[in-house]
Amino acid sequence: MSMLNKRKVLVIHGPNLNLLGERETGIYGKDTIDNINAEIMHKAQELGLECEIYQSNSEGDIIDRLHSARGDFDGVVINAGAYTHYSIAIRDAIAAIKIPCVEVHMSNVYAREEFRRHSVIAPVCAGSIVGFGKNSYILALNGLKDLL
Amino acid sequence: MSMLNKRKVLVIHGPNLNLLGERETGIYGKDTIDNINAEIMHKAQELGLECEIYQSNSEGDIIDRLHSARGDFDGVVINAGAYTHYSIAIRDAIAAIKIPCVEVHMSNVYAREEFRRHSVIAPVCAGSIVGFGKNSYILALNGLKDLL
Amino acid sequence: MSMLNKRKVLVIHGPNLNLLGERETGIYGKDTIDNINAEIMHKAQELGLECEIYQSNSEGDIIDRLHSARGDFDGVVINAGAYTHYSIAIRDAIAAIKIPCVEVHMSNVYAREEFRRHSVIAPVCAGSIVGFGKNSYILALNGLKDLL
Amino acid sequence: MSMLNKRKVLVIHGPNLNLLGERETGIYGKDTIDNINAEIMHKAQELGLECEIYQSNSEGDIIDRLHSARGDFDGVVINAGAYTHYSIAIRDAIAAIKIPCVEVHMSNVYAREEFRRHSVIAPVCAGSIVGFGKNSYILALNGLKDLL
Amino acid sequence: MSMLNKRKVLVIHGPNLNLLGERETGIYGKDTIDNINAEIMHKAQELGLECEIYQSNSEGDIIDRLHSARGDFDGVVINAGAYTHYSIAIRDAIAAIKIPCVEVHMSNVYAREEFRRHSVIAPVCAGSIVGFGKNSYILALNGLKDLL
Amino acid sequence: MSMLNKRKVLVIHGPNLNLLGERETGIYGKDTIDNINAEIMHKAQELGLECEIYQSNSEGDIIDRLHSARGDFDGVVINAGAYTHYSIAIRDAIAAIKIPCVEVHMSNVYAREEFRRHSVIAPVCAGSIVGFGKNSYILALNGLKDLL
Amino acid sequence: MSMLNKRKVLVIHGPNLNLLGERETGIYGKDTIDNINAEIMHKAQELGLECEIYQSNSEGDIIDRLHSARGDFDGVVINAGAYTHYSIAIRDAIAAIKIPCVEVHMSNVYAREEFRRHSVIAPVCAGSIVGFGKNSYILALNGLKDLL
Amino acid sequence: MSMLNKRKVLVIHGPNLNLLGERETGIYGKDTIDNINAEIMHKAQELGLECEIYQSNSEGDIIDRLHSARGDFDGVVINAGAYTHYSIAIRDAIAAIKIPCVEVHMSNVYAREEFRRHSVIAPVCAGSIVGFGKNSYILALNGLKDLL
Amino acid sequence: MSMLNKRKVLVIHGPNLNLLGERETGIYGKDTIDNINAEIMHKAQELGLECEIYQSNSEGDIIDRLHSARGDFDGVVINAGAYTHYSIAIRDAIAAIKIPCVEVHMSNVYAREEFRRHSVIAPVCAGSIVGFGKNSYILALNGLKDLL
Amino acid sequence: MSMLNKRKVLVIHGPNLNLLGERETGIYGKDTIDNINAEIMHKAQELGLECEIYQSNSEGDIIDRLHSARGDFDGVVINAGAYTHYSIAIRDAIAAIKIPCVEVHMSNVYAREEFRRHSVIAPVCAGSIVGFGKNSYILALNGLKDLL
Amino acid sequence: MSMLNKRKVLVIHGPNLNLLGERETGIYGKDTIDNINAEIMHKAQELGLECEIYQSNSEGDIIDRLHSARGDFDGVVINAGAYTHYSIAIRDAIAAIKIPCVEVHMSNVYAREEFRRHSVIAPVCAGSIVGFGKNSYILALNGLKDLL
Amino acid sequence: MSMLNKRKVLVIHGPNLNLLGERETGIYGKDTIDNINAEIMHKAQELGLECEIYQSNSEGDIIDRLHSARGDFDGVVINAGAYTHYSIAIRDAIAAIKIPCVEVHMSNVYAREEFRRHSVIAPVCAGSIVGFGKNSYILALNGLKDLL
Repeated sequence: MSMLNKRKVLVIHGPNLNLLGERETGIYGKDTIDNINAEIMHKAQELGLECEIYQSNSEGDIIDRLHSARGDFDGVVINAGAYTHYSIAIRDAIAAIKIPCVEVHMSNVYAREEFRRHSVIAPVCAGSIVGFGKNSYILALNGLKDLL
Repeated sequence: MSMLNKRKVLVIHGPNLNLLGERETGIYGKDTIDNINAEIMHKAQELGLECEIYQSNSEGDIIDRLHSARGDFDGVVINAGAYTHYSIAIRDAIAAIKIPCVEVHMSNVYAREEFRRHSVIAPVCAGSIVGFGKNSYILALNGLKDLL
Repeated sequence: MSMLNKRKVLVIHGPNLNLLGERETGIYGKDTIDNINAEIMHKAQELGLECEIYQSNSEGDIIDRLHSARGDFDGVVINAGAYTHYSIAIRDAIAAIKIPCVEVHMSNVYAREEFRRHSVIAPVCAGSIVGFGKNSYILALNGLKDLL
Repeated sequence: MSMLNKRKVLVIHGPNLNLLGERETGIYGKDTIDNINAEIMHKAQELGLECEIYQSNSEGDIIDRLHSARGDFDGVVINAGAYTHYSIAIRDAIAAIKIPCVEVHMSNVYAREEFRRHSVIAPVCAGSIVGFGKNSYILALNGLKDLL
Repeated sequence: MSMLNKRKVLVIHGPNLNLLGERETGIYGKDTIDNINAEIMHKAQELGLECEIYQSNSEGDIIDRLHSARGDFDGVVINAGAYTHYSIAIRDAIAAIKIPCVEVHMSNVYAREEFRRHSVIAPVCAGSIVGFGKNSYILALNGLKDLL
Repeated sequence: MSMLNKRKVLVIHGPNLNLLGERETGIYGKDTIDNINAEIMHKAQELGLECEIYQSNSEGDIIDRLHSARGDFDGVVINAGAYTHYSIAIRDAIAAIKIPCVEVHMSNVYAREEFRRHSVIAPVCAGSIVGFGKNSYILALNGLKDLL
Repeated sequence: MSMLNKRKVLVIHGPNLNLLGERETGIYGKDTIDNINAEIMHKAQELGLECEIYQSNSEGDIIDRLHSARGDFDGVVINAGAYTHYSIAIRDAIAAIKIPCVEVHMSNVYAREEFRRHSVIAPVCAGSIVGFGKNSYILALNGLKDLL
Repeated sequence: MSMLNKRKVLVIHGPNLNLLGERETGIYGKDTIDNINAEIMHKAQELGLECEIYQSNSEGDIIDRLHSARGDFDGVVINAGAYTHYSIAIRDAIAAIKIPCVEVHMSNVYAREEFRRHSVIAPVCAGSIVGFGKNSYILALNGLKDLL
Repeated sequence: MSMLNKRKVLVIHGPNLNLLGERETGIYGKDTIDNINAEIMHKAQELGLECEIYQSNSEGDIIDRLHSARGDFDGVVINAGAYTHYSIAIRDAIAAIKIPCVEVHMSNVYAREEFRRHSVIAPVCAGSIVGFGKNSYILALNGLKDLL
Repeated sequence: MSMLNKRKVLVIHGPNLNLLGERETGIYGKDTIDNINAEIMHKAQELGLECEIYQSNSEGDIIDRLHSARGDFDGVVINAGAYTHYSIAIRDAIAAIKIPCVEVHMSNVYAREEFRRHSVIAPVCAGSIVGFGKNSYILALNGLKDLL
Repeated sequence: MSMLNKRKVLVIHGPNLNLLGERETGIYGKDTIDNINAEIMHKAQELGLECEIYQSNSEGDIIDRLHSARGDFDGVVINAGAYTHYSIAIRDAIAAIKIPCVEVHMSNVYAREEFRRHSVIAPVCAGSIVGFGKNSYILALNGLKDLL
Repeated sequence: MSMLNKRKVLVIHGPNLNLLGERETGIYGKDTIDNINAEIMHKAQELGLECEIYQSNSEGDIIDRLHSARGDFDGVVINAGAYTHYSIAIRDAIAAIKIPCVEVHMSNVYAREEFRRHSVIAPVCAGSIVGFGKNSYILALNGLKDLL
């Protein structure tokens, strides 16, 4: 865990989330990834958290980023996108790094296709926040702060 | 929906939650239901929400309470306990009253028995917050406020 | 069985049916429970049946009501609502009282969610009438009369 | 839809129903197909419906008959017999002709073999009537009349 | 049942069996349907059975033929081909006519695709003979004779 | 746990068991609930156990009764009837109160419908006794006494 | 295979396809079966193929037509409609005749009901073309020509 | 059945039970098979039952022993160990000998691995006693005595 | 394979078949195993086959007997009883010895419990004969003779 | 969408397709990826389409390439190789970019292993072309052109 | 565990392995069981292990042999043959004796029939070695030596 | 295949294996990836094998590395980590390159979560070695040497 005074949090956006605000706005809202990131950074500051944001469409890169978070970050907020439903490799990475992790989804995945109802990463996360749009990230920062 | 200036929120604790703090403290923590309710009331006040709390072990009573919330409350936070996993009747009640509802669980239900991984009410709730102990309720109030 | 000249029929409305006419009118039509009950009473009279109507959101209360029908009623019409899909306890009550029972649903449950396609009470009922809106009750009275 | 003053209804008996009254009378009763047809015709007349009855053991012929009902009939009552459980082709025919259709079964199919509990045509029918013996047809005419 | 001195047996070949000897000879052998039928007729004579043979690719026609066997035949040998695996309508016809029926298959259907391992007609037949090539029919005549 | 000299046992009869002796006597025998309760009380006395008996058709009431047993009773004998097969809420109540519990069934549930073969409460009970008619309760008292 | 200079192709339309242009035009487009057949004949001519078109709602007739294609046709284009999903008999006919066969569907069957995602005939066809409306047939002729 | 004054009971221990007291004592307790057998013999005497005990790790030997019990024993207590979960052959033997049989398990098999939750012999036994350690055998003798 | 003039056939009766004629005579008929064996020997002689009969309740012994048949017998008739449904070891033995094997069952296993519908040995046998009572063995000898 | 006169199409080859012509030539034919690409480019030119081809073994890179196609391409032809069967992330990318996409497979995936029969991307593609070898790409260009 | 200087290893060959070299040599190679045993003994000597080899086709005998290994052997190498897939009794024996056990298979069971992909004994073994022909045993001795 | 005198082996470590020795040491032991690699290199030398080691968290990179092994390596040892359970793309790569491949796992994956019991790559590997900690790699080199 970090020795710094300020707790550090890594926020990871998984596949296709770079298109937020441009894609399926009926489901995900009209905010772009940049707007959302700005709100995340603002909230983190408000909560006295140092924050870094990372986006990738690559399963391997997300695993690498989780690994490199060890020793550097105190918590992780992850929206693993579609990888949520099958990436046992990301699950193992979360379990391996032993940093508390909060799973988030913007849409209510339980109200969509059957295959989106199952998360392979949920069992190794501390908690899950689902369905609050961009606010899911904000609530996760709140929740994570209390866990740290 | 309520015509009042202050938004009203109903918090429902389902079966066995009256034993909180006395039961399986390794999973649910040591706070009693009274402590948790006090924190919920305090947070609601802080958020400018009027709040009422209800607990029952009876599926039918929970449905009755949901029905009577119509016209009186603007949002619902519900920890349906074990009914989460099979009460299609509570699901139908939530869908019928058309008040935004947030599902909460204190423990990470995804890291427990297989049968706890499936929620029949999640698809008709606005969102879900899982795994933050008593803080799950606090985050739900936060999330609900933004939805209203 | 009743010794009276007039056959007696008990009509049971299960969970959430008290909201009829106020809820999901696209699916269930605009008639309120009171309108529907009036039509049921009227049809019963027309058929020379004595009729009593009972609604409850509670599984246990429905079982109690079924039990107390023994010796008093000659037939039962039941819309068990969501309990249709999982209440083996109501199923056992129907089987135990040995009064012919007709299952009704207003909407076509077979055209809705997958979990609504399975009725645990159907195998112990005499027959099922599904999808005719409030008319399902009327047809059930007709059908029941011929069974008695 | 028919422009005539009198509504026209087509009643279809599927496979093996020609043997009614001669086969498994414990399940289906002792009325022959001719008796039942006579009662159907009589009831139709009573309801002011014009009625035609068709029986075939062939899936293709039933589809052909459904097709040719377009423009000529206002409603269909169908006991698809064993085809109920697997004929997606009959399902598609019912969906295609856009005439309200009522599914009937004489026996309580839900109290028989597991494979009889699933109807592939139910989702595209307006309603289902199951378990009233020959009276299932009569109730279906009643129900259909109200739908038209 | 037949009143004649000689027992009468109907042999039914289902879909695609008209191509025997011309199709997949690795599986079914090189005998044509005519050769096989000759051997069946010869064996029947030897056993003192009157025999008639029918082939159709149509499910409805097979049902019609089974129906018309009532009162005329004492036993049925049926190779229902692919209909074996899904024709509940043929199953119902066999059950309805109450004539003892023996199911035959020339190839060992249990050693082929998974979907060929399940017969919907087996439960209503007296017995099954599988895997002896054209000899399956001969054995079925033998077996049927003893059943009559 | 009770501080008294005499161990106290709570016997719970679940849904439809109030009809014992009047219902399906082929399966459950001819003893009424009152006869059975008298035998239970008699056996308890013989074993030096204080005993209380409770029956309810309501899932919520059974949970309430289990909760209120805490601090007052040393053991529970429960025939949860149909709730055995789906009431995770009763399961959670049994697990929460931490009083040793014995599951009983009068009939051999394993020899009945498939859905009666699965008990959701068995994993949190100390033991199960199935199939000995009213004697199942007597054996349970015996077994429970040794566990205490 | 045909000894003629021109390759011959048989196009088979299965059940309900005779209603094209009159039925569910949102899914299948507004072209009638006659328009589509005209385009098919035109394309065939353009590709130097002789072409014959056959439509039937009967499984048995489709099998008969496939059988009689032996020796006469060099390729088959088949839209088996609903039979696609369960007619093992048609599958066996395609496998038996040993003429290369292309499966077509006008709509994207993978984006519709779950039961339409499985084709029992696909494994014995040379290829499948799905989702291009009437153009699926045109592409199939193209593809088949290259296979011959 | 035995003509003797004293009823005779055969107790069968299945595979691996010879290791009791030496193996997984956390699950099965510290009593050796000899201690347990002594208690069984003592209880039998107390109940006025003649008793014989048999242990084998071999499925075939257990079947042979069950067969030879015919005419000689009035009841059987069987802990079939792992064979409980798959030996249809032992199931058939129990059904064939027509001597009332009680199934016992020392540990609560329902609280262990999923595959231990299913007993293939339970449906042909009179009753089951599960989870009372060595006392399961004692309760079984009690229960069996009342059945005889 | 045997070099003798007379073909040799081994008939194996699996578990519980030694009780034939004494057990469930409604299902298996009243003939004892000795009667049946006499008929088998008589038929074998009639067919010019040398025949040996073996019965065991032990899976291992049946495998041993199959192994020792190599070099000595030309064909095997096996009624594997309950082992039919799970003994992959017997299946492997049959496959290993490379002697043509015919599977027989006296009762129609397809009309009994679901778990009796699946044979693990059928795929490695030449053929199966099911449902002809003791005559199943006779037909198997007939069928086997033609295979040799 | 592109404002250019010429429509632009992106062809994506997924994992292992770079080995075409060197790998399992029995299944995929002997053409190398370079030959196939040349034919694709030639056909595109013939159809008046501008075409670009991309191959990657990386799920993340394929997603990136799909994203960057937005605004630049009018259609996509994708052979997602093994990712077809599980990459919900690629599915989401295709759905997100809103460019019509055609799924292709060179081999008949329906005639191979069971797990190759399910495509997670098919429901979000416009159409699928399966089993025509390299010609699958050519037909896809044809089909796509008509869709644009 | 053995107190001797030399570690002792028991090698168990399960059902049908006595036929090695004579059976399905395409799958298992041409070495006979004697050749393989000689290589095992030789390797054991080379590794300084005392070794005993046991073969049986009987599940019960294998369990007996495992039991008697207690106190005498330090490790077990077991090729349980077909019992691998269903013998929970052997699994329990391995778990009970608390001697480290290595599972071996000569053929790659994962590339054969579906039912061979599941091992009920693997979870209680220390490790598994699959697919190296007779060398699987040699590698197991190597691996076991390091575990001891 | 390599023309060199020394055989070349590629060892691939999949996702999260770079954290070995730092992560879940209870399961994987305390050796770091560097220690393990040193032992692998040492053993390879001892066996006269040239060896190269590659680690990646990226599915695509692992596929690329497998492809580039063609012509350069004679064998592959692969611990595909979590990709083992779902990467059909890696499976296809292994099948495509036609170099003998050995699957290894350090922990006994069969004793962990259910989803770790299924390997999609096992059927295309020559063999599997599971559960020997770092020694799994050493045994794999041994086994691979004999295969080459």
